[in-house]
Amino acid sequence: MAGLCTQVGGRHGVGRHVHHPVVSRRSPPPHGFSPVDRVAPLTSKRKGNAMQVATELSYASFQTVYNVLSFALASMIFTALFLLISQGRVLPRYRNALVVSATVCGIAAYHYFRIFDSFRDAYIAGGAGQPLGADGLGGLTYALVAGDGFNEGYRYVDWLLTVPLLLFETIAVLALARSDARSLLNRLIPASVLMIVLGYPGEISSDVTAKLVWGTLSTIPFIYILYVLFAELSKSLDRQPAGVRGSVGRLRILLIATWGVYPISYLFPVLDSFGLAWFGGEESFVLRQVGYSIADVLAKCLYGLVIYKIARLKSFADSADFAASEGEAPSSEKQAA
Amino acid sequence: MAGLCTQVGGRHGVGRHVHHPVVSRRSPPPHGFSPVDRVAPLTSKRKGNAMQVATELSYASFQTVYNVLSFALASMIFTALFLLISQGRVLPRYRNALVVSATVCGIAAYHYFRIFDSFRDAYIAGGAGQPLGADGLGGLTYALVAGDGFNEGYRYVDWLLTVPLLLFETIAVLALARSDARSLLNRLIPASVLMIVLGYPGEISSDVTAKLVWGTLSTIPFIYILYVLFAELSKSLDRQPAGVRGSVGRLRILLIATWGVYPISYLFPVLDSFGLAWFGGEESFVLRQVGYSIADVLAKCLYGLVIYKIARLKSFADSADFAASEGEAPSSEKQAA
Repeated sequence: MAGLCTQVGGRHGVGRHVHHPVVSRRSPPPHGFSPVDRVAPLTSKRKGNAMQVATELSYASFQTVYNVLSFALASMIFTALFLLISQGRVLPRYRNALVVSATVCGIAAYHYFRIFDSFRDAYIAGGAGQPLGADGLGGLTYALVAGDGFNEGYRYVDWLLTVPLLLFETIAVLALARSDARSLLNRLIPASVLMIVLGYPGEISSDVTAKLVWGTLSTIPFIYILYVLFAELSKSLDRQPAGVRGSVGRLRILLIATWGVYPISYLFPVLDSFGLAWFGGEESFVLRQVGYSIADVLAKCLYGLVIYKIARLKSFADSADFAASEGEAPSSEKQAA
Repeated sequence: MAGLCTQVGGRHGVGRHVHHPVVSRRSPPPHGFSPVDRVAPLTSKRKGNAMQVATELSYASFQTVYNVLSFALASMIFTALFLLISQGRVLPRYRNALVVSATVCGIAAYHYFRIFDSFRDAYIAGGAGQPLGADGLGGLTYALVAGDGFNEGYRYVDWLLTVPLLLFETIAVLALARSDARSLLNRLIPASVLMIVLGYPGEISSDVTAKLVWGTLSTIPFIYILYVLFAELSKSLDRQPAGVRGSVGRLRILLIATWGVYPISYLFPVLDSFGLAWFGGEESFVLRQVGYSIADVLAKCLYGLVIYKIARLKSFADSADFAASEGEAPSSEKQAA
């Protein structure tokens, strides 16, 4: 294989050949961030930046986003595996809720893998590849460079797949009558798709008015879903076995608490444009990444584990034999405890 | 295969060819670390290095960290697999402890994979890609280069996920009454999160006072956790079947012995600043990496295997049928032994 050959004019106007080794897909692209062929990072014209991707990050900001994305990735992978491995620990009738929860976390793991790589490749440290002095890493600055860029579309693709599944797993674990479940899903799933599709144009727009209009439109199905689910979970409390009520109650709170983070993260760039300094540029970007990531971990991993716990408690309530084989006290004792 | 070919203007204006060998997918990026385009290290102010990441490593130091990280990675992967595969060798009631132990090792494997890659890419050998003379590898020096850097944040993200799970698996294998277990976890898990969150600012600070203040704050929940667990394990000794007591006793010792390594590793950079030459710069960095890695292997892999052994002995004690099916002597004989 012959390598590509690029001629770059030197500062002193004399060409010279330096053969770089062939680089791997995994290494940051050879943007030639050396003093001689250094190119200017993407210009930061005020407010022309799609998705409000920060054009420059400090070392601390870079590390924060880097680590929070990795944290979300690890959480998704291992929650998915845990839920798959723990199939045998609930009765067959609840296993579909677990499989769907695991699928949600698995799909999210895939997207966080992509988001992590996308972020790492989108920013390049100033003087990349050059030895650092005693200052070490702390003084580095990372620039957004021309290339694939940091792709936030992954988040929306992820939500488009996982939010309907999250709704499905919630209905599945409640073990409602088939016709009730179908009627709920027929209302919730189209609403969730509408919510995500309406949110996307606002996310990619750099115009505050567009952001607010699309955000408001997206909020209508968002509130509808929360209202229906909250009402349905509350109604189903009476039908749940005594030991399960507490967990279903917590699921209801978790739903409101975690879903609420998404619109807040969405609004960070808007707060920025209102002149709230703390939300300016880089901070707004970092906060949005941290906010979305933590909300995803709560809404998918923690939610999945609560679903698992509900499935397990309902399994014990449904079958004393199963409870005994799992070393659980019979339900009379459990209620007394 | 010919390498990529870039023409870069030289400082001295004389064209010259330097052929780099083709490197593998896994090699550090070709940021032009060659004698011709090498530039002076970035400014070197004293003590500005986040996380005390060494800026230069000898070949021996580089190899030591490299190999100890790989050792930890291999230990984590295969302990996780062993614990998953061995599910059937304990009664269902103890399987969750094994699944959680496997999850702990799996999460740690993910992070060691990342730490290993991060370390390998953060340092580049002087004259990378150039053929070596008769000196061979021994004379190489590795420099920390601008780029993603060596990310120690992975360790803290790992602990944030695994320490609560380690506490959970300890309580799970003791098979306490549900209300006792819940009360313990409600105290231990918040304390563990506090411990890690308070330790992080000290770890990333290069200021000795900050290190000591955060370290001390972090030690308060650390000691609380050890005290509660040690007391609880001691109390539960009486309730354990005769054959299990020895193993629970060992678990107690293992807990103190391995957890104690973390604060010591944390303090290496502080000892450095006190002028203890042996802990200076590079040595302090290498010792910290070795210390944390070995502590992780003991606290996760060895601890997980002791949990497995306890689960197995308790399974035999709980069910003579199960013991017989596993070819174990009946319990009367076992107690005599």
